[in-house]
Amino acid sequence: MPRTRSALPAPGPVRLGPDARAALRPTAVGITTGFWHARRATNARVCVPQGPELLESAGNLHNLRLAAGADEGEFRGAYPFVDTDVYKWLEAAAWQLAQAPDPGLADQVARIVGLVAAAQQPDGYLNTWFQLVKDGRRYQDLRWGHELYCAGHLIQAAVAHHRATGGTELLDVAVRFADHIDSVFGPPGSGRPVDGVDGHPEVETALVELYRETGERRYLDLAGYFVDRYGHGLLGGEAYCQDRVPLREATDVEGHAVRQLYLLAGAADLALETGDAELRAAGERLWRAMTATKTHLTGGLGAHHDAEDFGDPYELPNERAYCETCAAVASVQWSWRMALLTGEARYGDLIERTLYNGFLAGVSLDGERWLYVNPLQVRDGHTDPGGDQSARRTRWFRCACCPPNVMRLLASLEHYLASGDASGLQIHQYVGGRYTAEGIAVRAETDYPWDGTIRLTVEETPADRPWTLSLRIPQWSRDFRVRCAGEPYDAPAAEGWLRLERTWSPGDEVVLELPLEPRLTAADPRVDAVRGCVAIERGPLVYCLEQADHPDGGLDDIVLDPTRPLVVKQRPDLLGGVTTVVAAGRRRAVPDRGWWPYVPADAVEIPGPDGGDRVELTAVPYYAWANREDGGMRVWLPLS
Amino acid sequence: MPRTRSALPAPGPVRLGPDARAALRPTAVGITTGFWHARRATNARVCVPQGPELLESAGNLHNLRLAAGADEGEFRGAYPFVDTDVYKWLEAAAWQLAQAPDPGLADQVARIVGLVAAAQQPDGYLNTWFQLVKDGRRYQDLRWGHELYCAGHLIQAAVAHHRATGGTELLDVAVRFADHIDSVFGPPGSGRPVDGVDGHPEVETALVELYRETGERRYLDLAGYFVDRYGHGLLGGEAYCQDRVPLREATDVEGHAVRQLYLLAGAADLALETGDAELRAAGERLWRAMTATKTHLTGGLGAHHDAEDFGDPYELPNERAYCETCAAVASVQWSWRMALLTGEARYGDLIERTLYNGFLAGVSLDGERWLYVNPLQVRDGHTDPGGDQSARRTRWFRCACCPPNVMRLLASLEHYLASGDASGLQIHQYVGGRYTAEGIAVRAETDYPWDGTIRLTVEETPADRPWTLSLRIPQWSRDFRVRCAGEPYDAPAAEGWLRLERTWSPGDEVVLELPLEPRLTAADPRVDAVRGCVAIERGPLVYCLEQADHPDGGLDDIVLDPTRPLVVKQRPDLLGGVTTVVAAGRRRAVPDRGWWPYVPADAVEIPGPDGGDRVELTAVPYYAWANREDGGMRVWLPLS
Repeated sequence: MPRTRSALPAPGPVRLGPDARAALRPTAVGITTGFWHARRATNARVCVPQGPELLESAGNLHNLRLAAGADEGEFRGAYPFVDTDVYKWLEAAAWQLAQAPDPGLADQVARIVGLVAAAQQPDGYLNTWFQLVKDGRRYQDLRWGHELYCAGHLIQAAVAHHRATGGTELLDVAVRFADHIDSVFGPPGSGRPVDGVDGHPEVETALVELYRETGERRYLDLAGYFVDRYGHGLLGGEAYCQDRVPLREATDVEGHAVRQLYLLAGAADLALETGDAELRAAGERLWRAMTATKTHLTGGLGAHHDAEDFGDPYELPNERAYCETCAAVASVQWSWRMALLTGEARYGDLIERTLYNGFLAGVSLDGERWLYVNPLQVRDGHTDPGGDQSARRTRWFRCACCPPNVMRLLASLEHYLASGDASGLQIHQYVGGRYTAEGIAVRAETDYPWDGTIRLTVEETPADRPWTLSLRIPQWSRDFRVRCAGEPYDAPAAEGWLRLERTWSPGDEVVLELPLEPRLTAADPRVDAVRGCVAIERGPLVYCLEQADHPDGGLDDIVLDPTRPLVVKQRPDLLGGVTTVVAAGRRRAVPDRGWWPYVPADAVEIPGPDGGDRVELTAVPYYAWANREDGGMRVWLPLS
Repeated sequence: MPRTRSALPAPGPVRLGPDARAALRPTAVGITTGFWHARRATNARVCVPQGPELLESAGNLHNLRLAAGADEGEFRGAYPFVDTDVYKWLEAAAWQLAQAPDPGLADQVARIVGLVAAAQQPDGYLNTWFQLVKDGRRYQDLRWGHELYCAGHLIQAAVAHHRATGGTELLDVAVRFADHIDSVFGPPGSGRPVDGVDGHPEVETALVELYRETGERRYLDLAGYFVDRYGHGLLGGEAYCQDRVPLREATDVEGHAVRQLYLLAGAADLALETGDAELRAAGERLWRAMTATKTHLTGGLGAHHDAEDFGDPYELPNERAYCETCAAVASVQWSWRMALLTGEARYGDLIERTLYNGFLAGVSLDGERWLYVNPLQVRDGHTDPGGDQSARRTRWFRCACCPPNVMRLLASLEHYLASGDASGLQIHQYVGGRYTAEGIAVRAETDYPWDGTIRLTVEETPADRPWTLSLRIPQWSRDFRVRCAGEPYDAPAAEGWLRLERTWSPGDEVVLELPLEPRLTAADPRVDAVRGCVAIERGPLVYCLEQADHPDGGLDDIVLDPTRPLVVKQRPDLLGGVTTVVAAGRRRAVPDRGWWPYVPADAVEIPGPDGGDRVELTAVPYYAWANREDGGMRVWLPLS
């Protein structure tokens, strides 16, 4: 694995404004080695460069040319929001360019920015679906139209492009559109013609970023107006569109998971910039409700395929887990904003779990194929027609929201890992590279998550002034050891943070050792779907069984023996190099019940510990599943 | 409960043709007392009479007038198949009229038949959606258009109307439409312009009935053509539309459950009339695959909300069980045809289970409200927006397929209960009333399913000729007792049939006693959704807990104690009079896990038998759920 030394951290998302009321301020990390460096290299080498060709073949770029009058034909694509595939790709490419010059990619970006600019209408409006298919009937179907959702992704791309390149070509487009929206939308009595919100939140967080980038307060106010107009029946009052109850009064996450999460990210952005304590409290309340009752073990969110809904508390199915990849991206974005707002470590816990599991499973190891939904189980013999909501990886989707969302998060990942404040540096996530904050630089060497040792070396430090190096001790970690300048450091972590305060010198070394014994995890008994089951975890990784590793039979008859040890096995040959966990199991013999699978309870024989054939179970990290031949998969394993 | 003596059994569906190759021939039963008599009385008194008003207010009748040029306005309704609501209601009303004269209902039927006839186009075509909305672009969207599906329900209504009233007003309409279809559809080389099938099977079983009613062989041939053209990619090859594989080659039920079941009913009808052994074998194979791996305990079918799909084998979720009421109706229709085809008792087992549980839950006790989907669990605090696919009863649906489907099955129920053959009479289902076959009449007195005693008295019998009274011994029944003319009769049942062969005299009495001890039922361990759970059953009834009977707390923390006896309690005051089952349980105390519900498996305390507060559990029949205030419901109860 090549080790390169990064230059100064590149610019990224969530660049707080000067008046922000954040507990922590984000600070980027140079990721130069290890697990995430490799994933980002694939993103940079395979995923992002393929974008223009995929957007061309799916028709997205054609639509832009059509709207500019520069091409002939029909609108292509099945959804009113296909423009966002372009915008999210532009954002990903911009973050990519922020890290390293790439003339070929820069040319592609410039070309596609040109297509976007040419498609914009003179008054700033831009949406190819409404321009080409809906005869320009703007803002008349806010529930389904996605016009402001599209604007939001355009704005995010423009902010990224400006931060990354300094160029204003796309920012000018976004500002014109934002000004147009600001001239149209407003509360009754404001003199603006439309009092409304978009069925799919997203523009709110984008407008706060535009405020951050331009200093123009109107965009912040407009974001605040939108956030507070949900829940008042402007969209018919449905939870699906986040319109059942105002966010400030909500007690649980509900409705379409991605819509809910983008709205919450926007609300957290507002709270960060305005200090709105009620919005902060709502965010804390809803985050806790979500993690305690509506989050899959993988960090996946959204239980229902139908309406992409969060579902009820503790309703966490396995094979029908929806867990959209976009929801994982949105969850990371929201939790990061909450971490900055509150300074609390638990947001980093969810970010870690999500990144390593529910998010990363969304892209194949080779960067060529994608999962839109991320189930926790695929049954033996599962037949699957493929397509958007399939449990089989797909080259691209009709609704291609997820792939460029993965690209943009991977390309900007270094901005979700660490923060600084007056006390010093906080490390939320452990990667190989260089963490920096005001006057501070710390080099990190680690093979995490395969190995639990994180070696941190102070490279730059203010002289003669103490500061605190805060290390997040993961929620999954039952204990840990830390040595500071060679000496054991014996202090407990407090609410997830281990605080090392001292006057540091260059060369000082801190070694954190997190225990990576594989473990069996059980669920709250109210999670009906996994009663009598355990999952295998190791560090931040959730493991699963895959058919490919068990050629002698299916997975649906396997029972785990929890009394036998879990054995770690390094497998550099497997799935790009993973650590597997080998467990002991048995293959349950199910008697033939004839045509009816329900029997008197007293007729059920619970096999003893010697029942069934022994079988060695090989568990692989969940993120790496579905990279071999099709077959069954299980995260949760029955005990009897 | 009033006891009335029916006249001769009324005509009904599946009147086999003269050349049919059935093992058994259907014979109607006069249902005069007891459980089903009461449900049918509600159907006759409340459900069916309300039809015209509901069809008027939903716009269905307006559409017919519009198509006839007799009204002005727009097409109303959200689906291309809204005409079928009218047709299914007409079928229900016709079966109703077949049993008892009702001048008011007869007038309504005549009026609505007139609307249907007036809407028909000169060449026989009839579909208000295509006539009014699609500018008459016929048969160009067979995948979604539902034109032949609508024709099928029209034909079934017409056959029922003709059988019930002798009038040909509607039959003439159906024949004209069928002749039109026969002139359009046919295989390549037939000279017919369209080689195709409908995305939603239904016309196949209807055309066989039209053949039975008219003797016109062309309709049987057309049904055969349609059945065999599924699975050849004419609809794009999707399982959803039953187009992935030809039925003759299929090894499992798949795709949209109602589509699959109507297609299978049509195939069974064909096998009945033609003796097609391959279609019969396919039906037997698929029925077994369905019951063994894809049927909920209630008889409910269709695991997925999404695409209304059967789902994978053993994928039988509880709160997200789809179990559409229409699928229960279609399942009864198919199983009945399979029973006639094979003579086997197990089809009656599934019919019984479905009727008493998954089907009957579809209509409220008062006949005023409906369930489209029939889940097996509703969590504490479940919020539900109502509507078509809600776990709360609704007055009518945007897609109102289920209510008139319930009406037509209840109104013709007496035709699914008994059969005759050369050996004598077979009783598939036990009701209070009078069973007849060729020269045979048997009176039945029973309070089944509340009481297990069925008292059968021979009223008419051929003199001096033995015949066999065959009694289905339910699959759930572990033993039974029977007395024949006062003497114990000690013979085993063979494959579900107890065969009593003798020379009978009028007044001979047979008393069958089925054991109705409540029982705990467990599932095949591959049914992941109910691992570690049992269900309470009694006779053919599946029981559930409802919040209304447990005011001291929710249902999600309840654990059943299987070591304590189940106690039967008559509750004439409850839910129209039910037998409840009282069980012992405990209320699980779940420690506060903070924000993350997953814990190390060794930290899970399995409470001992004395853990948690004792609570008395009152289980009510599943069919009666959701007739009180909204609240939780559970069929499957955890044991720990």
